[in-house]
Amino acid sequence: MIEHPNPGPNDLYPTRKAGEPALLYRTDPVAYGGPGDGPIDAETLTSYDEKGFLTIEELLAPEEIERYRAELRRLSEDEAVLRDERTVTERGSDEIRSIFEVHKVSEVFAELVTDPRVVGRARQILGSDVYVHQSRVNYKPGFKGKDFYWHSDFETWHAEDGMPRMRAVSISIALTENFVHNGGLMIMPGSHRTFVSCVGETPNDHYKESLRGQEIGTPDPDSLSILANKHGIDLFTGPAGSATMFDCNCMHGSNGNITPFPRSNVFIVFNSVENTCEEPFAAPSRRPEFIAARDFTPVGDR
Amino acid sequence: MIEHPNPGPNDLYPTRKAGEPALLYRTDPVAYGGPGDGPIDAETLTSYDEKGFLTIEELLAPEEIERYRAELRRLSEDEAVLRDERTVTERGSDEIRSIFEVHKVSEVFAELVTDPRVVGRARQILGSDVYVHQSRVNYKPGFKGKDFYWHSDFETWHAEDGMPRMRAVSISIALTENFVHNGGLMIMPGSHRTFVSCVGETPNDHYKESLRGQEIGTPDPDSLSILANKHGIDLFTGPAGSATMFDCNCMHGSNGNITPFPRSNVFIVFNSVENTCEEPFAAPSRRPEFIAARDFTPVGDR
Repeated sequence: MIEHPNPGPNDLYPTRKAGEPALLYRTDPVAYGGPGDGPIDAETLTSYDEKGFLTIEELLAPEEIERYRAELRRLSEDEAVLRDERTVTERGSDEIRSIFEVHKVSEVFAELVTDPRVVGRARQILGSDVYVHQSRVNYKPGFKGKDFYWHSDFETWHAEDGMPRMRAVSISIALTENFVHNGGLMIMPGSHRTFVSCVGETPNDHYKESLRGQEIGTPDPDSLSILANKHGIDLFTGPAGSATMFDCNCMHGSNGNITPFPRSNVFIVFNSVENTCEEPFAAPSRRPEFIAARDFTPVGDR
Repeated sequence: MIEHPNPGPNDLYPTRKAGEPALLYRTDPVAYGGPGDGPIDAETLTSYDEKGFLTIEELLAPEEIERYRAELRRLSEDEAVLRDERTVTERGSDEIRSIFEVHKVSEVFAELVTDPRVVGRARQILGSDVYVHQSRVNYKPGFKGKDFYWHSDFETWHAEDGMPRMRAVSISIALTENFVHNGGLMIMPGSHRTFVSCVGETPNDHYKESLRGQEIGTPDPDSLSILANKHGIDLFTGPAGSATMFDCNCMHGSNGNITPFPRSNVFIVFNSVENTCEEPFAAPSRRPEFIAARDFTPVGDR
């Protein structure tokens, strides 16, 4: 008999524990706050609830974009940053792919985390004070940008970081233009209401490999086909300064990029202070704090 | 001193011969025929001349698509086809990526080559009778479809097949829907007027590797950036049955495909009977005839 994952009172979203994948219902809300709780209007909030994401056409003004891009260049040329354990390089090269905990590495990016346009929206969606579970900048080079396979962030955060419930939101702010052809973010709209329970046990120190490309905790092809056929796939395009906020359980990924146009973005994950991380649900040990914070201090002024 | 390629009377498009890449002007026409010579209207023909491609929204009717798709399935399940040297499999698997000379492998696809909607347009563009230089079907699987890096087909056909001038046109007919997200054809519009002379000598039997992913004869990043910044990049989308015809010197490629939606198309290259292949301009020997025909018999009824 094949063992199926069985949601229990302590683990609503079992994963990496059974011999077969499964599709489980989400039991948590999506938008916790209401239209009166922040800058997001009622229509956008309803759509976020349904689709699992929202877009902001011009979150950053041109002069702000320039400031963040200059900081991005400065960081990419800083030898200390390149050698920092929080910096991930592209497979087979020394080119920077991501810098984690960028709001601590850089004072410039620190401001973005507490910006009311950013944290105000996160608070509104999560209906509480919030803290930063993870932050990073991503560089996706032109010509040879690798793909990032389909995954739910929550699956990883639950299994490896002990995040108990679905009450976290990510914001991705574009620092370069996202075209249809340079490997932008793809989301299956509505997929956030289904939890894909994955097979495979998490090995020790899994995070070192998984940051370059998921393998364990990877959704199976049948589940992905079911979700893609049901929901379709949205590809996000927009100028530098535009942003996408998406629920922690959205099924998302990105194709590679052979075009000469690189992609850079800032990525911040806010988790509710009422949903702080416990011990991992399906991993032998916690990931480092620069990937999964254990400091739950709320961010932003009230 | 660095040796630069120098167009001479016998080789207007030198490539793989010098130590540095170069951008050379095209000296050949693009559309050789006029609006009275076939099914393409004047406006479309002018646009083809400028951009190097045209699209046909519904080349095949739904019942025709179904017939070709059924034939595609039949071929992919035929053990003899899988073992045929004309069949190319995906890197690291037995899955079929392409079947060459498909108009000889399959009677069903043979009809497509001589279909007046297809060969009539090719004759009109090339202003003469035409023969099939190459034909194939391509399968780009879902989940793990690989990218195909930027290249000009003419660069290869000139260097390795001895095609003297730019007087060939390709048609790609979609047998599955091309979305923005499943690794469709990308072309830099207007790039067909520039020949990117590549560095590197062609090794023997190069075709066996190059059919899986170009390396020799690959445009350099600087040239690609110049062309992409000047012309931009168009990504082709459309339902099954739609088609794109593009000039032999268009700079084109495709990204990988992590979506569950596979892509299949039929690809036929017509060359003018006034431009038949000679000895390779930059390779030690000819490629096999199933890749580069030496039978110059015109196709289609007059």
